[in-house]
Amino acid sequence: MQVDTLLIHCKQILTVGGKSSPRKGSDLNDLGSVADGALAVEDGLITAVGTTVDILYNYKSDNIIDASDRIVLPGFVDCHTHPVFVHTREDEFAQRLAGKSYVEIALAGGGIRSTIKTTREADENVLFELARKRVLKMLSQGTTTLEAKSGYGLDTDSELKQLLVIRRLGRETPLTVVPTFMGAHEYPAEYKDDHAAYLDILCQEMIPAVAEQGIAQFCDIFTEKHVFGIDESRRVLNCARDHGLQLKMHADEIEPIGGAELAAELKCVSADHLGAASDAGIEALKEAGVIPVLLPATLFSLRSKTYARGRFMIERGLPVAIATDYNPGSCNCDSLPLTMSLACLQMGFSPAEALCAATINAAHAIGLGDKVGSLEPGKQADFTVWDIPSLNFLPYHLGSSHLESVYIKGQKAFGS
Amino acid sequence: MQVDTLLIHCKQILTVGGKSSPRKGSDLNDLGSVADGALAVEDGLITAVGTTVDILYNYKSDNIIDASDRIVLPGFVDCHTHPVFVHTREDEFAQRLAGKSYVEIALAGGGIRSTIKTTREADENVLFELARKRVLKMLSQGTTTLEAKSGYGLDTDSELKQLLVIRRLGRETPLTVVPTFMGAHEYPAEYKDDHAAYLDILCQEMIPAVAEQGIAQFCDIFTEKHVFGIDESRRVLNCARDHGLQLKMHADEIEPIGGAELAAELKCVSADHLGAASDAGIEALKEAGVIPVLLPATLFSLRSKTYARGRFMIERGLPVAIATDYNPGSCNCDSLPLTMSLACLQMGFSPAEALCAATINAAHAIGLGDKVGSLEPGKQADFTVWDIPSLNFLPYHLGSSHLESVYIKGQKAFGS
Repeated sequence: MQVDTLLIHCKQILTVGGKSSPRKGSDLNDLGSVADGALAVEDGLITAVGTTVDILYNYKSDNIIDASDRIVLPGFVDCHTHPVFVHTREDEFAQRLAGKSYVEIALAGGGIRSTIKTTREADENVLFELARKRVLKMLSQGTTTLEAKSGYGLDTDSELKQLLVIRRLGRETPLTVVPTFMGAHEYPAEYKDDHAAYLDILCQEMIPAVAEQGIAQFCDIFTEKHVFGIDESRRVLNCARDHGLQLKMHADEIEPIGGAELAAELKCVSADHLGAASDAGIEALKEAGVIPVLLPATLFSLRSKTYARGRFMIERGLPVAIATDYNPGSCNCDSLPLTMSLACLQMGFSPAEALCAATINAAHAIGLGDKVGSLEPGKQADFTVWDIPSLNFLPYHLGSSHLESVYIKGQKAFGS
Repeated sequence: MQVDTLLIHCKQILTVGGKSSPRKGSDLNDLGSVADGALAVEDGLITAVGTTVDILYNYKSDNIIDASDRIVLPGFVDCHTHPVFVHTREDEFAQRLAGKSYVEIALAGGGIRSTIKTTREADENVLFELARKRVLKMLSQGTTTLEAKSGYGLDTDSELKQLLVIRRLGRETPLTVVPTFMGAHEYPAEYKDDHAAYLDILCQEMIPAVAEQGIAQFCDIFTEKHVFGIDESRRVLNCARDHGLQLKMHADEIEPIGGAELAAELKCVSADHLGAASDAGIEALKEAGVIPVLLPATLFSLRSKTYARGRFMIERGLPVAIATDYNPGSCNCDSLPLTMSLACLQMGFSPAEALCAATINAAHAIGLGDKVGSLEPGKQADFTVWDIPSLNFLPYHLGSSHLESVYIKGQKAFGS
């Protein structure tokens, strides 16, 4: 059979395939491995995965890529990022190291409100060029699909502008991009003393406008003490669901206020952060089938002594995912390999668990579990080629990248 | 005046220059900055540093490089690495995550003795090619000078073979390489029950042979409980000094057995690790002018809850340096930018302190404080060009590299 492309002579292909639901328990360590592997690709989709001998026997192509004995993995799925903003906030990083508190930094004009101010003022094209550069850096680390959130606009026009930029990231870069509306990221300065009014705007103006434009797939909210409480979050998320959006939550990042329990009640697709989630909250997520998305690079960047209880969640049978949480404030990490190292070193994941968490489970966390995140027939031909001896090397090694090339929908998107 | 090369239109040059001794106290935060900066280079050395206007007024060249408004820093000096070995040990990383102890791994044939076995068996050219690839990865992260240790041979021929490879790294790559003899890295298996015999070989055979060949500048030793004790270390280091070698120590990495105090007594150039150094040991280092070389990536890779007390050392007035400790077992980190992030996040350094620790102080820690580590007239023209808004971005950002190019002795050694 003639196909567009064959990739042959992979030392090993880790498919992470063969399961229709998110991976949990021992499935997290059962990756599916093909030695001297090969892939057949047609119309951007995987037609077959097998040994080089078998694939060459069954398929022909005018475009045969020799993987030169490299390790091939599914492209990474970064299922929680905030890449649309103007300025990075590295000076606040230095201020925090010098002992300044987040409140002091915010009072001096920094913090998320400074990002909101400049994002509101920015031209869409300027925002797009900045975000595009960041997303291509993610691609250079092996990310082929990402979820991107608005939430630095906090008024209807600015949120829609961010979502337009996110739509353009999907159309004008090779990556697959899932858009999330996050108008409930913070209260904007003009409503800091009138939360009720902003909640009305969210529910009566922003969510309907976002839904009408069909410009977001998910609605997310920062549910935390001093930001959006449980009742406020329930109202916003129910409204979003009524308008056809799927649900995500920033839940129990710093204090256990019942965010995980609410995510379970509302059957959110994912509950993210969970640094302080209670045992009951974790059990509720499991029962409701909510995917926990853990963000260890954020706690690392914030110099936290503790991390989300990822090992406990795995042992309790939850299908954990990990993501970078790339953003300008708390975590300017754009690398899922480094996030995998952190998952291993700070949360005790095995390398295989970290890979599942950054691929197939992350894909399920953004509703793309049937399209990306593993290498099997019918899925997008999104794969990465590594000059490493085995998967274990990936989280073990720190620093330089051993990624040689990245393919998205069968087309080379990065590398030599 | 005509010179070989001009680098102009740097948004900012951080020179880290102007001091003849290692930096300590407030000097660690006083980097020396030139806005719209330029460098003049002749015969591989820096002739002048100044503003673009001034440099273009005073110098002419047929080779003018436009830095396009980038940040320019001194090349990094990685003053503690072990890059000469055959196989990486990523599978032990996975075993440790699964709960295996180092002793269990060693008993099953892993650990440092597995590296020693394969290094002994390896052909010099094989070792060189493997080490060369690793060193070029370090270069890709901004390292222009490195110290490299033997210590995986542990017999005279194998140690000399490693030191030959290290000499070739200096001659056959663009980097400046400082060789360190570390035959006292561990007791080899054949002497594990007869330490006295191995100490005799070290002092009567290996050190004299290394000295005679003039193939190492430093002698280093792993001073730690169950490895080389204080008295044994004193004997080996005194012997090395008598043979003309300068001294370094792996001191108080895990337990405070008086390693720092011994480093002070022997006036070692540096004392490295120091994860458990006592207050008295730290004070002794300060009095003796020994440079503390801290290796935060190692403790990070070993999942340590504690780090060397770098902040305390800075506040006590010690001229701290940092290094990657790149090796196959405890720390496979080849990036000084990531090590700077760890110095900030885990030890509370400011970005400027981390930069000094990875450049000028690291240069002093390997006896090259007058040749590399800062950008000032007379020094090697080793500089790195970064697409970042300011120095603070470097430790703040995690993951992808924003390094555009690296120059060593005025010649482009990496990048676009």
